[in-house]
Amino acid sequence: MNRPWWNRMIHSVADKGRDLLNINGSAPSSKELRQLCEELLTGAGEARGTALAREVVRVLESMHGNAWPGFLEMLHEHMGPNPKRVMEAVEAYRKEPGPETLIQLTRSVESPRQELFRRINLSPNGTLQLVRLREHLLRTLKDRPHLKSVDADLQHLFRAWFNRGFLELKHIDWSSPALILEKLVNYESVHAIHGWRDLRRRLERDRRCYAFFHPALPDEPLIFVEVALMRGIPDNAGLLLNRKAEILDPEQADSAIFYSINNCQFGLRGISFGNFLIKQVTTDLKQELPGLKNFATFSPVPGFAETLRRTDDKAPFTPERLRALLADHEDTIREVSGKKDPAEGLRALLDKPEVVRTHLADVLETLALAYLTLVRRGKTVFDPVALFHLSNGAHLERINPLGDCSKERWDASFGVMVNYVYEVDNVERNHEKFVDSGKVNLSKQLQKKSKAIREVWKGG
Amino acid sequence: MNRPWWNRMIHSVADKGRDLLNINGSAPSSKELRQLCEELLTGAGEARGTALAREVVRVLESMHGNAWPGFLEMLHEHMGPNPKRVMEAVEAYRKEPGPETLIQLTRSVESPRQELFRRINLSPNGTLQLVRLREHLLRTLKDRPHLKSVDADLQHLFRAWFNRGFLELKHIDWSSPALILEKLVNYESVHAIHGWRDLRRRLERDRRCYAFFHPALPDEPLIFVEVALMRGIPDNAGLLLNRKAEILDPEQADSAIFYSINNCQFGLRGISFGNFLIKQVTTDLKQELPGLKNFATFSPVPGFAETLRRTDDKAPFTPERLRALLADHEDTIREVSGKKDPAEGLRALLDKPEVVRTHLADVLETLALAYLTLVRRGKTVFDPVALFHLSNGAHLERINPLGDCSKERWDASFGVMVNYVYEVDNVERNHEKFVDSGKVNLSKQLQKKSKAIREVWKGG
Amino acid sequence: MNRPWWNRMIHSVADKGRDLLNINGSAPSSKELRQLCEELLTGAGEARGTALAREVVRVLESMHGNAWPGFLEMLHEHMGPNPKRVMEAVEAYRKEPGPETLIQLTRSVESPRQELFRRINLSPNGTLQLVRLREHLLRTLKDRPHLKSVDADLQHLFRAWFNRGFLELKHIDWSSPALILEKLVNYESVHAIHGWRDLRRRLERDRRCYAFFHPALPDEPLIFVEVALMRGIPDNAGLLLNRKAEILDPEQADSAIFYSINNCQFGLRGISFGNFLIKQVTTDLKQELPGLKNFATFSPVPGFAETLRRTDDKAPFTPERLRALLADHEDTIREVSGKKDPAEGLRALLDKPEVVRTHLADVLETLALAYLTLVRRGKTVFDPVALFHLSNGAHLERINPLGDCSKERWDASFGVMVNYVYEVDNVERNHEKFVDSGKVNLSKQLQKKSKAIREVWKGG
Amino acid sequence: MNRPWWNRMIHSVADKGRDLLNINGSAPSSKELRQLCEELLTGAGEARGTALAREVVRVLESMHGNAWPGFLEMLHEHMGPNPKRVMEAVEAYRKEPGPETLIQLTRSVESPRQELFRRINLSPNGTLQLVRLREHLLRTLKDRPHLKSVDADLQHLFRAWFNRGFLELKHIDWSSPALILEKLVNYESVHAIHGWRDLRRRLERDRRCYAFFHPALPDEPLIFVEVALMRGIPDNAGLLLNRKAEILDPEQADSAIFYSINNCQFGLRGISFGNFLIKQVTTDLKQELPGLKNFATFSPVPGFAETLRRTDDKAPFTPERLRALLADHEDTIREVSGKKDPAEGLRALLDKPEVVRTHLADVLETLALAYLTLVRRGKTVFDPVALFHLSNGAHLERINPLGDCSKERWDASFGVMVNYVYEVDNVERNHEKFVDSGKVNLSKQLQKKSKAIREVWKGG
Repeated sequence: MNRPWWNRMIHSVADKGRDLLNINGSAPSSKELRQLCEELLTGAGEARGTALAREVVRVLESMHGNAWPGFLEMLHEHMGPNPKRVMEAVEAYRKEPGPETLIQLTRSVESPRQELFRRINLSPNGTLQLVRLREHLLRTLKDRPHLKSVDADLQHLFRAWFNRGFLELKHIDWSSPALILEKLVNYESVHAIHGWRDLRRRLERDRRCYAFFHPALPDEPLIFVEVALMRGIPDNAGLLLNRKAEILDPEQADSAIFYSINNCQFGLRGISFGNFLIKQVTTDLKQELPGLKNFATFSPVPGFAETLRRTDDKAPFTPERLRALLADHEDTIREVSGKKDPAEGLRALLDKPEVVRTHLADVLETLALAYLTLVRRGKTVFDPVALFHLSNGAHLERINPLGDCSKERWDASFGVMVNYVYEVDNVERNHEKFVDSGKVNLSKQLQKKSKAIREVWKGG
Repeated sequence: MNRPWWNRMIHSVADKGRDLLNINGSAPSSKELRQLCEELLTGAGEARGTALAREVVRVLESMHGNAWPGFLEMLHEHMGPNPKRVMEAVEAYRKEPGPETLIQLTRSVESPRQELFRRINLSPNGTLQLVRLREHLLRTLKDRPHLKSVDADLQHLFRAWFNRGFLELKHIDWSSPALILEKLVNYESVHAIHGWRDLRRRLERDRRCYAFFHPALPDEPLIFVEVALMRGIPDNAGLLLNRKAEILDPEQADSAIFYSINNCQFGLRGISFGNFLIKQVTTDLKQELPGLKNFATFSPVPGFAETLRRTDDKAPFTPERLRALLADHEDTIREVSGKKDPAEGLRALLDKPEVVRTHLADVLETLALAYLTLVRRGKTVFDPVALFHLSNGAHLERINPLGDCSKERWDASFGVMVNYVYEVDNVERNHEKFVDSGKVNLSKQLQKKSKAIREVWKGG
Repeated sequence: MNRPWWNRMIHSVADKGRDLLNINGSAPSSKELRQLCEELLTGAGEARGTALAREVVRVLESMHGNAWPGFLEMLHEHMGPNPKRVMEAVEAYRKEPGPETLIQLTRSVESPRQELFRRINLSPNGTLQLVRLREHLLRTLKDRPHLKSVDADLQHLFRAWFNRGFLELKHIDWSSPALILEKLVNYESVHAIHGWRDLRRRLERDRRCYAFFHPALPDEPLIFVEVALMRGIPDNAGLLLNRKAEILDPEQADSAIFYSINNCQFGLRGISFGNFLIKQVTTDLKQELPGLKNFATFSPVPGFAETLRRTDDKAPFTPERLRALLADHEDTIREVSGKKDPAEGLRALLDKPEVVRTHLADVLETLALAYLTLVRRGKTVFDPVALFHLSNGAHLERINPLGDCSKERWDASFGVMVNYVYEVDNVERNHEKFVDSGKVNLSKQLQKKSKAIREVWKGG
Repeated sequence: MNRPWWNRMIHSVADKGRDLLNINGSAPSSKELRQLCEELLTGAGEARGTALAREVVRVLESMHGNAWPGFLEMLHEHMGPNPKRVMEAVEAYRKEPGPETLIQLTRSVESPRQELFRRINLSPNGTLQLVRLREHLLRTLKDRPHLKSVDADLQHLFRAWFNRGFLELKHIDWSSPALILEKLVNYESVHAIHGWRDLRRRLERDRRCYAFFHPALPDEPLIFVEVALMRGIPDNAGLLLNRKAEILDPEQADSAIFYSINNCQFGLRGISFGNFLIKQVTTDLKQELPGLKNFATFSPVPGFAETLRRTDDKAPFTPERLRALLADHEDTIREVSGKKDPAEGLRALLDKPEVVRTHLADVLETLALAYLTLVRRGKTVFDPVALFHLSNGAHLERINPLGDCSKERWDASFGVMVNYVYEVDNVERNHEKFVDSGKVNLSKQLQKKSKAIREVWKGG
């Protein structure tokens, strides 16, 4: 296809440094890019429709890694609100606070960046490029924290654009485009997909996969969840991931297990979809298969191992607490570890999966329960997966000390996996209780045990 | 279909006044609606996924006209930024202007309304309801100008949401859903569509219709343009609208005439799409039919008649100016009007279309040219259609004094219609010249005449 | 779009009279068309892929009415089985009947026409042209009965091609393309559609329209049925066709009324779809709306008026029979007609709708029942609509003497309309009883009356 | 989904042996199946719409391999034309040959089987089951040649149903459903696809894959072709199949290479699509990429090795011919084989790929040319791939003695691959010359060599 004339037109006006767009030659300098962006922001940008936006996107697409910091700094320095204008609006508001001065103030603090981003989005592929731009930004942020001003603007826009009301829920199965399936394989990070045969099993009738898509990114899942339709809530990964498992008639299933939830776009970090995805899928499955009684997860406990191994001053598992928690199992630990002090013995065993699994499954369960309910980050729980599901209104149903025997999972949580359960009628109450009190909602079977542990912990 | 359980759930918690949602009964009071909106803004809103948003949308859908002002005032009063927080942020910024205080300031001025609107959008049909909400707001604004604070927030959101990058250009033809075609008939306001047969003629091979759609409003065109593929640029409406005109082979056409552009959503006023639509359609047609040489409009001159009839103190057409402009036609006017003073004579003739058309076509052309180029609103032209096309980079090509003989058009512009022409290579230059100087870009044939008129006008 | 080279190629070989394809010039002679068809049948046709078929279709599309008979005769004369080959095969079979000679015999009787038709179908639009071809043929058949040989071949092919397994059932509603809706308006012949507003009412939630489509004719419905979802089975057209009737919530309906079934393609006469359409729609509606209890029609009685008016020797309603049937109403008839003989009196009244409706509704019911059950064509019922539904397994439920007061319906059946009912559990039994015995299955309420009439009729 | 009532209905009539349909129990006996088929053929079949057809399809789907022969024999014995009726029609035609008796004769020879197949097709999935039925039939045919009567009927139907006019050409790429892509992997038999990565490379921008689909079999490609867009016509497989080859900009390509054509449905053997597929794809590519000059194949020579190895009495390569053909290479062959007689020497070398490739590439080319042009099957060429392309109007362009070094290809053709070229302007002439004379059309470069070989061969 030929380039449209609106596009070619750009090269017809020579006196504006547009030769920088000759991408085949050397990359544009920071200064040139800034010039291009400024032009896009002026009326000239309007006159040319989407042509200039296309050029900016083309430059961004071909920009090398080392050119990004310069570009991001330019956005920070030259595309922020005008300090003079802000100060004037501030003074005016101070003098006479009211609707008029407030509107002026609001306008004065809006960055030209926001308009720049909106205009970049005029181009085909613009949305994707802006998501990629934020990826670069997020990676740079640690070293250049002042760039969070740029990030604030991107986040503001993305929160508007990626509103759940604009997202489309799609059921992904073996009739889906290979292009999309390939991305599931790439993005799956909870239970890695081992080749197309594994993938195919995960898309059979008794497995489901749902993803949110945005209309402007038709080939890019934003988040997806894998669901297993089963009888009962599984306590180990083998039941879920066995490629050769017989296929269950979905009408026979009583449980829908959310066994993997993956955010796909790093550039959309902080724009949350997971809550909506779980609830929508639950609603839809409930309608399709009225036989489903349980909506549960099979979730990792990502911070458990690291936390338990900590020995620094602020380590939550102090020797005292450990000793108290292990009181019932002292003998066993001494025996299998050969150490006198159970706390020390335990630590010595943490690299011996077989021993722990065989003799100390109960101990793992106790420690994981303590970790999930008592180790805190600020006013809430420390574990990010727990935080996600508990905030959404689920409760902690069960701890499975032998949940997943893979190497990766041992390193992360000594193989412990847990089930959170979403009970339709309690979701809202759970959510409010959790948000108000910070306390973890527990199943009946865990409540008593938890109470005992809590006392020991305080004492420890 | 049954209501999903997330939805039904809402009715299970009795202690929060949610019985107001029993729409079949009496409508909710303002206070109750406020309560519902506040709830949607809290964490409870999050816990329930989209359920609460659906309820708000349901209430809005069924709300009677007289309930709207109360609701809009509530948005103004109770959902704006917190004045105390704003003032604190203002003071903080004043003391120490910098990135940190700026971010705080920016956050402090963002209304909770914006988040409310974003959450309403979680619901199916939410986007449409928000567009309808703004319709109510715009209609109320004249009487309640303070509500422009609410409008500012809606506009801010809509500018993000209805970004051209998210719009889809669709070619509408006789294979399009009747649902959509019916809306064209309803929204067409330039050249009314008289029944389905008329519509069908406008969708034949030598006529085209293109519209922008937003993915969240699949059944609602946002704006559409009707195009006629012709030989030459037409100087009267009959050539365009004759239902029985023979169908031209599009390959034979040399001109694409944009003869009707209609914004369909009153609630999106001020969010502009027209510029992009014309340019995109031009690009696409150019590719499809390389034989097209002219891209022109056949446009109304909406403010002409009213302006010419004005006799108040600030009327642009003063008796002196009129006399000067009519100098060449004095005799004719005297003769057909029977009045001595040509200015007076002209006014006397303005209700006699046949006389004017037969004897004074040249006079109409002169007066229309004066109106379009010399009557101003602030620094730019007064006529809104002229403003639109000239800002987009078109030039004024020709004035057709006998352009449209319908009653409506006589009342609006004494039947005068004009052609604006989009020349690919000049669009940007024209735009810049027009924006910088405020001067109307004219075709060669009009330039000389215009110069003469300008001098007369200044003198007058 | 340019013509593809395979197409252009055809003009590159000059020595085969292909210049006849220059359609812009004079039409090809019969001889030339025959040559073209023969060429399509040879290996050359194969070599050129679909090019030659396209040319034949192009010629057929542009062929004038008066050229058709010659073309059809050519198909009859020159494209039939080779008589010599047939006779040889006949002799061979006679001598030694067996699988081998049977296969030879079968091959010998297959016309080259069939292969010609199959090859014409290679072209885009070929299927449509063949349907149109059969239209011409059917119209010609009365005058040229020997052409039924050609028709036999077309029917054989169409029975294979338009097998129900290849048809797609589509729900047509207000979101359907105007292109399709326009065709409904054109093809509706039972209850004419009066403009788009009428059409729109027929596509609301409590009205349904379903059609069969063939993949090769995506813009051409083959047959469609209009269904009204109602409470109760209607006894007059007003209930069905009132454009301003309130819309019923489909969930509230207990009856699905098939009030109009239309075959759209004259060229497919004799290839039946109606049976499948009714049964499929019944199945689908039953699933969607379990509240539906009655599946009934509201049907015309097309042959009733003509039959009743007959006075020839073979007229089924003899004066004797009429007198006997009218015995209970003698006085009324005499009174309103002023004639002594009730048979004569009745005939005198047949042009006075108002009188008949006011005084003789019962008489109409009696006569219509006699007509439907006792007037025969061969071994089965005479009325074609009755034949259709009774063969499909419906029974005659009710006769509505005031069913439709329009002029057309008076002329056809004195306004009488009837309901046939499809009862799921009896469809098969009804079908078999009707096919075996030729007797009309009746509702309980009609059985007694029918018995009385039958005796009177035999006596008369 | 629940079974529709039309379906359930079947079980409500107990007296017809329909309990045989209880598939969960024992399979139906041949006799029962025959009963079911006969019922489908009667009016009862009509009454029940598609219900009975569904049952037959359900039985066929679940039928075990050993039940098939009985079923096929039943079709042969009980579903053929009625011999008595045929003989009557034969006699009638003999007495008075004419249109009437011919139509009777034609009807008498049509098997009830054909109607049975058409009715089976009423069921969803019916078409697929009939294709599978023919698979079973074709596999049985060798042992039961009398079943060709059944096959004749299926072929007749399939020729009507799978007419190219009903097929849809689809471009298959990485956005196609995994379901379809998986089938390409399974059906590819020319150049096996090694995993998804290999497949993906074959679907990049400079590779294309096109397939024909039938609307009733949306998930089943009928035939597909793989095309490589390249610079020049390749002489070895590495150029085509290298997974790591750089991707060429399609606009830069001058040659489209059809390197693999695969029929996917064994049950459609004899219903040919390949010719149409190649020509359609050529037309489409030509339009999309005007830079393409060569349309060529890279084809196997499947019968070469087997023919050359033959030593039986009728072996085409007699020792005399071999010696004559090898005359120019005697010394080399003697040297590398150590045998005195070059014919014997050659045979000894046929299991030493490396030696042959290094020293005897020219010899292979000579022998392959002799094989392709001089070894005959009846009046035409022996090699099936040659027959296919030459009949379609291609010519033999080049012989590539080192075309494909894989083990499979050595076994089939000593690694020789050839290019056939489709020249738009010569396709028809080539086709006719080949069909008329049986002579292979050759490129200029091969003509001279071929002439020499021909003389040697005749002498030999």
